[in-house]
Amino acid sequence: MLKLYDRELSGNAYKARLLLALLDVPYQRIPVAMKEGRNLVDSAYAGLNPRGQIPTLVDGEDVLWGSTAILCYLALRHDPAGSWLPRDPLPMGRVMQWLELAQNEILGGLFRARGIVKFGLPGDLPAAQATAVSALEVLESRLRGDRWLAGPEPTIADIACFPYVALAWEGGVEIASYAGVRRWVGDVQSLPGFVGMPGIEGQSVG
Amino acid sequence: MLKLYDRELSGNAYKARLLLALLDVPYQRIPVAMKEGRNLVDSAYAGLNPRGQIPTLVDGEDVLWGSTAILCYLALRHDPAGSWLPRDPLPMGRVMQWLELAQNEILGGLFRARGIVKFGLPGDLPAAQATAVSALEVLESRLRGDRWLAGPEPTIADIACFPYVALAWEGGVEIASYAGVRRWVGDVQSLPGFVGMPGIEGQSVG
Repeated sequence: MLKLYDRELSGNAYKARLLLALLDVPYQRIPVAMKEGRNLVDSAYAGLNPRGQIPTLVDGEDVLWGSTAILCYLALRHDPAGSWLPRDPLPMGRVMQWLELAQNEILGGLFRARGIVKFGLPGDLPAAQATAVSALEVLESRLRGDRWLAGPEPTIADIACFPYVALAWEGGVEIASYAGVRRWVGDVQSLPGFVGMPGIEGQSVG
Repeated sequence: MLKLYDRELSGNAYKARLLLALLDVPYQRIPVAMKEGRNLVDSAYAGLNPRGQIPTLVDGEDVLWGSTAILCYLALRHDPAGSWLPRDPLPMGRVMQWLELAQNEILGGLFRARGIVKFGLPGDLPAAQATAVSALEVLESRLRGDRWLAGPEPTIADIACFPYVALAWEGGVEIASYAGVRRWVGDVQSLPGFVGMPGIEGQSVG
């Protein structure tokens, strides 16, 4: 069975949990402890993930680290129809645009603001919140006219961008004025098989 | 013909130029001006790229923004053999691990340190340099024993990680003590069709 190195409150690990739930793929969760705001990385875990972060996915002999790689891998392996990650150049490129946003303005803004406000991590809160707003504006520019981020159907682009947007309030960032973003958050939560996490409504993965 | 919105000194735009050169795909460069350390984004460019960043690729009616999306799109479209971006789940997942590193520790460390030192942008230089070191350590953990980042052959993972590593010295970061990284930089520079940019040896794209 797949193993996911994970933590309940991690939005990055939740991306993997959410796609696994939507694809109905069974897996085992292995929690990674924290110490002083960082992952507690022993040498065994460092051997699995040289970045010392979560999530990490273990599939038999194979190891993949980072939410981007895990989302792509799971979609390619467990969704042969290619709905969650289209295989053709332009549709896949469109998904990748949003995976890059998820790793840039969304992590540098929404993720960081949440870390400062919710977990007391050091950082420049006004700067993080300003970056968060720029992320929301980019998302709104798409979602005010389109239902999903990368194409006519939901893809891993939506999964990658969703968690820290839905958790924006935990970093003191309001999404109320972004009508398209707000509607999209509800649409993601309505997907068959959707699961939540602490801070995001929906059945949590136990 | 493909159009690339670009700037000579941008390592992110150079990722696209480098892959286009390695794939021997002709394209037209359109420089995007800067003002006070930011891209000068008029409404036409904002319509192409909602993030207001470079690079942006225009292929006929189709527009793709961000180096990750552009690298994936070009590899899928112009390298049908799948050498630069393998199509199978595990090899593609392995490429995506490094694309995520390129968007995280490499941009947050090496890119940011260069911006502060070379372009006088605001920021915390010691913090950026510390992140840069963590990026180099992750790269070294792979490259001390393997020739390329994601598999037995060069892929877009190498293209995505290369520029800001090769430009590390412009941010006051030394790569001399990372023997695997140093060897790999030379191997990338030896690829048939390789082009450089200011700060990276090799014929520049005129």
